[in-house]
Amino acid sequence: MNLHEFGLIGPQSFISQSPTDAIRIAQKLGYPVALKIKSLDILHKTDIGGVRLGLMTSKEVESAYLEIIENVKTHFPNASIEGIEVQEMIKDGIEVIIGLFNDPNFGMTIMFGLGGVFTELLKDVSFRVLPINSRDAKTMLTEIKGNRILNGYRNMRPVSEEMLIDLLLTISDKGYFYKDELEAVDLNPIMVWENQYRVIDAKFIPKTNKVNELFSQPPNTLHLEKFFNPRSIAVIGASNTIGKVGNGVFDSLVNGEYKGKVFPVNPNNDFVMGKKSYPSLTSVPEPIDLAVMSTDISYVPSILNECKTKNINNMIIISGGGKELGGNKIKLESDIKNQAKENNVRIIGPNCTGVFDGRSRIDTFFQSKERMLRPKDGLVGFMTQSGAVGAAFLEDAHAFGVRHYVSYGNRVDVDEADLLALWGNDPEIKVIGLYVEGFEDGRKFVNTANEISQKKPIVIYKSARTTQGANASASHTGSLGNSYKVVEGALRQAGVLNVNSYDELVAAIKALAMQPESNGDKIGMISNGAGSMIQAIDYLTELKMELPLFSGPTIKTLQNHYPDYYIYKNPIDVTGSGTSEDYEFGIKAMLEDPNIDIVMPWFVFVNSPLEENIIDKLGELNSNYSKPILIGAFGGKYSKSIMKQIENQGIPTFDSVNKWVSAANAISWRFQINK
Amino acid sequence: MNLHEFGLIGPQSFISQSPTDAIRIAQKLGYPVALKIKSLDILHKTDIGGVRLGLMTSKEVESAYLEIIENVKTHFPNASIEGIEVQEMIKDGIEVIIGLFNDPNFGMTIMFGLGGVFTELLKDVSFRVLPINSRDAKTMLTEIKGNRILNGYRNMRPVSEEMLIDLLLTISDKGYFYKDELEAVDLNPIMVWENQYRVIDAKFIPKTNKVNELFSQPPNTLHLEKFFNPRSIAVIGASNTIGKVGNGVFDSLVNGEYKGKVFPVNPNNDFVMGKKSYPSLTSVPEPIDLAVMSTDISYVPSILNECKTKNINNMIIISGGGKELGGNKIKLESDIKNQAKENNVRIIGPNCTGVFDGRSRIDTFFQSKERMLRPKDGLVGFMTQSGAVGAAFLEDAHAFGVRHYVSYGNRVDVDEADLLALWGNDPEIKVIGLYVEGFEDGRKFVNTANEISQKKPIVIYKSARTTQGANASASHTGSLGNSYKVVEGALRQAGVLNVNSYDELVAAIKALAMQPESNGDKIGMISNGAGSMIQAIDYLTELKMELPLFSGPTIKTLQNHYPDYYIYKNPIDVTGSGTSEDYEFGIKAMLEDPNIDIVMPWFVFVNSPLEENIIDKLGELNSNYSKPILIGAFGGKYSKSIMKQIENQGIPTFDSVNKWVSAANAISWRFQINK
Repeated sequence: MNLHEFGLIGPQSFISQSPTDAIRIAQKLGYPVALKIKSLDILHKTDIGGVRLGLMTSKEVESAYLEIIENVKTHFPNASIEGIEVQEMIKDGIEVIIGLFNDPNFGMTIMFGLGGVFTELLKDVSFRVLPINSRDAKTMLTEIKGNRILNGYRNMRPVSEEMLIDLLLTISDKGYFYKDELEAVDLNPIMVWENQYRVIDAKFIPKTNKVNELFSQPPNTLHLEKFFNPRSIAVIGASNTIGKVGNGVFDSLVNGEYKGKVFPVNPNNDFVMGKKSYPSLTSVPEPIDLAVMSTDISYVPSILNECKTKNINNMIIISGGGKELGGNKIKLESDIKNQAKENNVRIIGPNCTGVFDGRSRIDTFFQSKERMLRPKDGLVGFMTQSGAVGAAFLEDAHAFGVRHYVSYGNRVDVDEADLLALWGNDPEIKVIGLYVEGFEDGRKFVNTANEISQKKPIVIYKSARTTQGANASASHTGSLGNSYKVVEGALRQAGVLNVNSYDELVAAIKALAMQPESNGDKIGMISNGAGSMIQAIDYLTELKMELPLFSGPTIKTLQNHYPDYYIYKNPIDVTGSGTSEDYEFGIKAMLEDPNIDIVMPWFVFVNSPLEENIIDKLGELNSNYSKPILIGAFGGKYSKSIMKQIENQGIPTFDSVNKWVSAANAISWRFQINK
Repeated sequence: MNLHEFGLIGPQSFISQSPTDAIRIAQKLGYPVALKIKSLDILHKTDIGGVRLGLMTSKEVESAYLEIIENVKTHFPNASIEGIEVQEMIKDGIEVIIGLFNDPNFGMTIMFGLGGVFTELLKDVSFRVLPINSRDAKTMLTEIKGNRILNGYRNMRPVSEEMLIDLLLTISDKGYFYKDELEAVDLNPIMVWENQYRVIDAKFIPKTNKVNELFSQPPNTLHLEKFFNPRSIAVIGASNTIGKVGNGVFDSLVNGEYKGKVFPVNPNNDFVMGKKSYPSLTSVPEPIDLAVMSTDISYVPSILNECKTKNINNMIIISGGGKELGGNKIKLESDIKNQAKENNVRIIGPNCTGVFDGRSRIDTFFQSKERMLRPKDGLVGFMTQSGAVGAAFLEDAHAFGVRHYVSYGNRVDVDEADLLALWGNDPEIKVIGLYVEGFEDGRKFVNTANEISQKKPIVIYKSARTTQGANASASHTGSLGNSYKVVEGALRQAGVLNVNSYDELVAAIKALAMQPESNGDKIGMISNGAGSMIQAIDYLTELKMELPLFSGPTIKTLQNHYPDYYIYKNPIDVTGSGTSEDYEFGIKAMLEDPNIDIVMPWFVFVNSPLEENIIDKLGELNSNYSKPILIGAFGGKYSKSIMKQIENQGIPTFDSVNKWVSAANAISWRFQINK
C-alpha cells in the first residue's frame, strides 16, 4: 500500500536532467527545495553527498546540482543515473497526525490530532469508527483542544476546514475499502497550510491475522419480544431454600404480579412453594415460552437440548460462573453460544438478574419485593451489564416507570444492539438507557445506535474507562476493556448521549421520559435561594449552555409585579420571601418568553413563605405549556415529600445541582441532535 | 524597577572595543551571539545597520564588527561610540512565563506557565498568593499540564527543578517586598535550560492607586463565642404574622430547644406569641447578649446605638436588602460596618439565616422545625454564604451532627477567617466546612486557613467559578467574583481541601468527622455487585489513588475461605451470593492487611443472601480497628433504612459512587497534608 493508492499527496517532486531543468522545476514548486540523486545503484544517497536540502535560490540550485553530479561521479563512477529529483520543502505549515487502526471492539478506527506536544504530551486526539461522514469529520476537528491553532493562531492564516474534512473523508474511505488488508496506517506528520496538505511520512501496516476481524453483524430481534411477554415460564433450579437464587427467582415469578403459568423444575423436590416440581424441562406437561436457569451454568448444554425438544426459544441464565472466571469457563460460554444458535434459542445472560416488564409484570429477580422495588409501567427501555446497577435503577425509576428492563451480564447471545433494535422500533418506548462496562461487538452497536438515535434518545453511561477500571470489569463480566477515547468517539458518532456517572444517567433518562423535547437550548431559572443557581450556572457554562436575557416584555412584566428587592433578570431571585404565587408568576413569564426554551425552577421548600399549593400550580403550568420544566431542590425529609408530590404531577425533580443540570443538558443535547 | 533590582538575570553582554575583543567575549559567552552598537547618539540601531544577530563563528563576529562600524560612520559620522555590545543569544531553551499582579481579593499574586500554546491557548498556568514557600513553588511547577516538557521532553535535557524553584522564590520575595509600589510584573519570556535561565523581556508596571491595596487584617474572634451561647436574645421585628421572617425566627427561638431568655422587640404589638413585647431594645428591662434583626435593614444604625447603650456586643442581621441590591444600599452597609466597629458590636449578616449551635440549641432560622431539621450536636463547624445551601447541609448533617453553624450572607463584619480562627482553636471542633461564593478579604482567609489547616481539616466548596456564575453571585450577596484559577491556587497553598460540588463537600466532611485519619492512601474494596466498584476505580484513578495488591497472607486467607467463584484480589467480589459473614471476613482481612489504609465496602443491600446482621458486624469492626471504613450503597427505600442503621453505629455511608470516592479522597488528602 502507498500514498498514491490511498489517493494522498506527499511532497511534490520532478526529475531534472540539467541545472536549467532543475531551476525551472524549483521555480514551479516554489522555494525552498531539496535536490536528491535518483539512481537505483545508489542506496545511501546522503552519505555520498547525493542530497542537498533547503535550497533558496536558482544560484544555490545550480551549484547544488553540479556538486551532486561531481560527488556521484567520485563515489559511483559507473552508476546509472535517472536524473536529479527536485522536491518541494514545506516550511510554514502546521503538523497534524491522522492514523487508522483496527480496534478490537470497533474495527477500523480513525484518529486525528495535532503533532508535537498536543499528541505526545496532552493526548489531545479524537477518534471515530470508519466510515465517517463529513459531520463526523467536522466534529473530530472541533473537539480537540488545540483546534484554535488551525483557525489562524498568531500570524498564521487559517487552515481550510473543507480541505481537512476532505482529507479525513479520503483517508476514511480508503481505510474502509482496504479494511481487510490493513492493520494500521500512520500518516505522521502531515503538514497543512491554507488549503494545502502534504503527507510527509506514511506507514502502512498490513494485516497479519484475522483475530481482530470486523464482525459487524446486523442486530437480531428474533424471539426477543417473548422475553417480556411469555405465557408460561419454567424455572430450572427453583428451590425452597431461602437465600438461594432459585428460591428468590421462583418467588418473584409465583408470588409477584406476573399472571402467566410458572413451573418449577427441580429433580430433588416434589413441590416448590406448593407447586408440583418436575424432574426435567421435557417432563413439564404444558408448553413453555421461557426457561429461566438458576442452577449451575454447567447444566446449560443439556437444558438447551431440552429446549429444542420442547420448542422453547427463550432462555435466561441467571447463574454466574461463566467467562468472568476465565480458564475452561470461557470455552463453556462459547459452546453455549454455538449450541443456542443451532437449537434456535435466544439467551439473556449468563451472570445477570434477567428481565422485568412494566406491563406484563414479569420479573426474574432473585431480590425479594420487600427489599427491591418493581417500578410502575412507563416509556423507558433500560439495559444494564451490571445487575447491581440495574437494581439501583429500578428504585430510581419510580417517578417515570419502566416498560422493558434487561440485565444481560455476560451477553452470550442477546446484546445491546439486539435490544436497541427491538426497542428502537417499538413506538411505545420513548427513551432507551444503557449501563455498559465493556462492548464486545462495538461496531454492531454503533451501526444500530446510529439508526435508532434518529428516532429516539439513547443515553449511556459507559464505565470501566481507565485501564484499572477495565481490569476490574474484565474479572467481573469478562468483557474486554476498550480504550475509552475510542468509545467516546464512537458514541458521539452514533448520536448517543454519553454521560459521566450513574446519577447523570438517571437524570437524563428522567428528564427525557417525563418532559417534551425542546425547541432550543436557552435556559430560564428562578429560585428562592440563589446559591444553587450560582452552582448550576458554573456547570451550565462548562457545558456551553446559556441563560439569555429575557425579552423586553418579560422583564417589564416581572418588574411591575415583583417587589423591589426581588431580582427579575435571568436567573430570577424571589428571595427567602418568595411565595408559590411568585414562583407561578415567574415560571409562567418564562414559559411565554420566546427567548427561553427550558424552564428550571429551583426550590428551597423549607422556606416558610412558600405555600404547598405550589404542587398544584406546577402541575397546571406543566399541563398548559409545552416547554420542558425541570425542578431542582435539595432533599431533606420535608422537601422530599413535596418533590414526590410534584413528580406525581408528571414533572421531574432532581435533588442535586449536578443532576438538575444534567437533565437540562440531556434536553439540550436532544434538541441539537434533532435540528 | 528593573531586572537587576529584582535580582534577576537577563541575556549576558559585554562591551567590546575591537574585533579581537568582540571575538574573545563571544567565545566566553558561547555562540551564537548578537552584536549591537552602543552609543547614546543612536536610537534606532537596527535601521542603520547597527545590529547583527545569530553570529556563529569568530569570522562572522569579526566581519559583523567591521560592517557595523562602517554603517555607523556612514550614517552618524559624529556619533560618540561607547563600543560594540556582544550579547549571548539563547537558542535551545524552553520558554516559560512568570508574572505578578495585584488580585482584588488576594493581593499580590504570582503566576507560572509555559510559553506559547500552553499559556495562550490552553491557559495552562498556576497561581499562588505571595509570599510563597518552596513547597508552593514545587507544586506550581508540577500542577501545570505541560510539566513533562520541563522534565526532559524529546531530546532536551531536563530543566533543574531546584533552579526553577529558586527563580520563583526570588520573584516572590522581591514582589512581596515591593508590593506597595507595583501593580504587576511581566517576565515573558524567560528562557530556561538545564540549570540556567535568562529573562528575555520584562515589564514592571508601577502602582497608580491604592484601590487594590492589601488589607490583610488578622482574624478577629472578639465576642464571637457569645453568638453560640447567649444567655438572652432580643428579636427586633418579632411578629405574630405567619410567613414573616420575624415570626419564623422568634418561633424557632421561643418554641425550639434553646433554653435562654428571648424578648420580642416590636412597637406595634403588646405581645408576640404570648410574650410581652417591647417598643425598643433599650426598654427591655434585662441584660441582652444577642440582638437579632428581622426587620428592614435601614433600622440597623439606630439599633446599633441602642446596642451600645445596653452593652450588647452581638448582632445578627437576618434581613436582606443590603449591597446585593446595589445603589445607596452599598453605602448603608459600609456605614453599618463602621458604626458597628465604633460601638464594639460584632455583626453576622445581613442577608443570612444566622446561627445554630448543636449544644446550646440556639437557632435563628426563619424556617420552621416542621420543614427543616436542626441536627444533633457534633464535631463539625460549618459556615455558608448561602442560607439555602446551609439549609440543605443541616439536613445532610443528621448522621454526624454540627456544633457551630453560621450563615453569614453579606458578611459586613464577621467573615470566614474570623470563624476559622475561632473554630480552629476550639479543641472540640474536628472538621471545618465552608460554602463560599466569593471572597472579600481573600488574603486574610488564606493566612488564617494556612495556620488552622495544620491543626484540623478545612473543606470548602467555592462556587461562582465562571464569570456568569460570579455575576449571578454578585447580584445575590454582592461579593466580587474572583478569577477561580487564583482562588484554586490560594486554597491549595492554604492547605484547604477544595471540592467541586455540594455533594462532595458533604461527603468529605462526613468522612472526616466520622472516621479516624489514615496512615496512608491505599484503598481496599469489597462488594457483592462489582458495577459500582468499577465506576469507583475510574474516579479513583483520575484522582491518582490506587488499589494495591493485597499482601501474600491476605490473599491466602481469602482464597482458603471463599468459594471458587468469588474474586479474592483487590477489589474483592463476593458476588450476588455474598453473605454478611463473607463481608465481615473480607473487611477484617483488609483492616489487618498492612498494604491497605482505607477500607471501602460497597453493598447491594437488596441482594437476598445478605443478612441484616451486617449492621452489627460493621459496628464491631469499626470499634475494633482504627483504619477508616467508608460504606457505599445505592439507596432505595430498603437500602436507605439499612444505611441509616449503619450510620447509627458511627460509620459513614454514601449513596453515590462519586460521594463514596470523594470521601476516600478527603481521607487521602488529609494524610498527604499530615505527612
